[in-house]
Amino acid sequence: MKIVIIGTGNVATQLGKVFKKAGHTIVQVYSRSTTGGIALADKLHTEVIFDIHFIDAKADVYIIAVSDSAIGSILRELPLKKQLVVHTSGSVSIKVFEKKFLNYGVLYPLQTISQNSNTNFKSTPVCIEAGNEASKKKLVQLARSISNEVHTINSEQRLFLHLAAVFVNNFTNHLFTIAENILSKKKLPFDLLKPLINETVRKIMNNHPWDVQTGPAMRNDVSSISKHLKMLEKFPEYKVIYGHITRNILLEKLKRVKE
Amino acid sequence: MKIVIIGTGNVATQLGKVFKKAGHTIVQVYSRSTTGGIALADKLHTEVIFDIHFIDAKADVYIIAVSDSAIGSILRELPLKKQLVVHTSGSVSIKVFEKKFLNYGVLYPLQTISQNSNTNFKSTPVCIEAGNEASKKKLVQLARSISNEVHTINSEQRLFLHLAAVFVNNFTNHLFTIAENILSKKKLPFDLLKPLINETVRKIMNNHPWDVQTGPAMRNDVSSISKHLKMLEKFPEYKVIYGHITRNILLEKLKRVKE
Repeated sequence: MKIVIIGTGNVATQLGKVFKKAGHTIVQVYSRSTTGGIALADKLHTEVIFDIHFIDAKADVYIIAVSDSAIGSILRELPLKKQLVVHTSGSVSIKVFEKKFLNYGVLYPLQTISQNSNTNFKSTPVCIEAGNEASKKKLVQLARSISNEVHTINSEQRLFLHLAAVFVNNFTNHLFTIAENILSKKKLPFDLLKPLINETVRKIMNNHPWDVQTGPAMRNDVSSISKHLKMLEKFPEYKVIYGHITRNILLEKLKRVKE
Repeated sequence: MKIVIIGTGNVATQLGKVFKKAGHTIVQVYSRSTTGGIALADKLHTEVIFDIHFIDAKADVYIIAVSDSAIGSILRELPLKKQLVVHTSGSVSIKVFEKKFLNYGVLYPLQTISQNSNTNFKSTPVCIEAGNEASKKKLVQLARSISNEVHTINSEQRLFLHLAAVFVNNFTNHLFTIAENILSKKKLPFDLLKPLINETVRKIMNNHPWDVQTGPAMRNDVSSISKHLKMLEKFPEYKVIYGHITRNILLEKLKRVKE
């Protein structure tokens, strides 16, 4: 397919690279930023435009990979109507396209994507939503060319998927930062925790997370919990988080007993 | 070495197995529970005693792997004085041995250990503390026979290590449970999140967690945050946790800017 990439961030870069690798042609990059646009066009061996009116009207699909708050203004300016236009956001509804476009959809890769580290799209779930059957067919075909995990979901499901992703990715990573900060106060390296982190994740690959839940809250180890809360007096924000997650593990236990 | 295992839980079982595999002799298992004791002695091809006065006084080391709250009473009953006695707890100080024993220490494997899934001790940090140099030498030798990651740390460091482990293991796992509960309300399978979870952990293997922090809080994406808080109205406890972790990511950003 002939693809126009709109945006130059992490998702635009990684999608551009993987589409090219899968045999598609990136016919243009559109960017509002000169530096970013030139750099990405260079990586993808294609041309860059900075004025949206020069956009190639004959591509098969236009991929908008910009921040959520910029999608609206891009759509207003985009001089297209019948062409297939898609965004890549977890939390923006497909309704944004309705008034102006005939063929549209969403291609949401459920992954944490960095500019410089190549994403393995083959195993990344790519979630598709489309405005009509023809668009859906085309999007599924495009998605399957880069991923073995193509799923059709609606906007509300995508919203909840994005929320769940915040818990398992952003919040988990923040717990790692908290742990590192705690250890650094006692001059202990974060590396000590890495085998434990690997094992934590290995366990849930074949088990429901609740079935492998362990720890002081799980075994009603009140003595450890109060020791920990005392140790956290020097980290008042961490103490609050410790308290709430501990409380929530206890609540979940009660809920499961009742069921 | 000749080893007596005291206890029959997850840690007792896995340590017993790995010591045996490393060429040591498990001379006895002591248990207060008949079923558990017979099962573990069977696994380790050794004898089990249920009366602590029958304990073999000629072993090289006595490993107490019982719940934190049971360590005190085991120590009071143990008819030993000069023998090397160790516990395996993250949060019990080495001081528990002081009044009664001459040779003692701690051997704390920093890992989540299950009864039925064999632990890879080679890569598990084993944290050692001892009451004197002779005990330390013996414990380090024993630990090195099962692990490539032997570290000498004091009781306070061990306490903080255990606290940090609660954040990265127990609390991370609970975030996975929360995500699964959120997805199940929209009939989405938890499996969709597994590639993201794997990537989250892969990233911190070579980076400080703070350096790879992403998400709505990190990029001041107030619109996603308020969408999420609204979606969480049906999950009031999750909303509180979402709010506190988000707030803490924002605080951490401010702190790092100031530094």
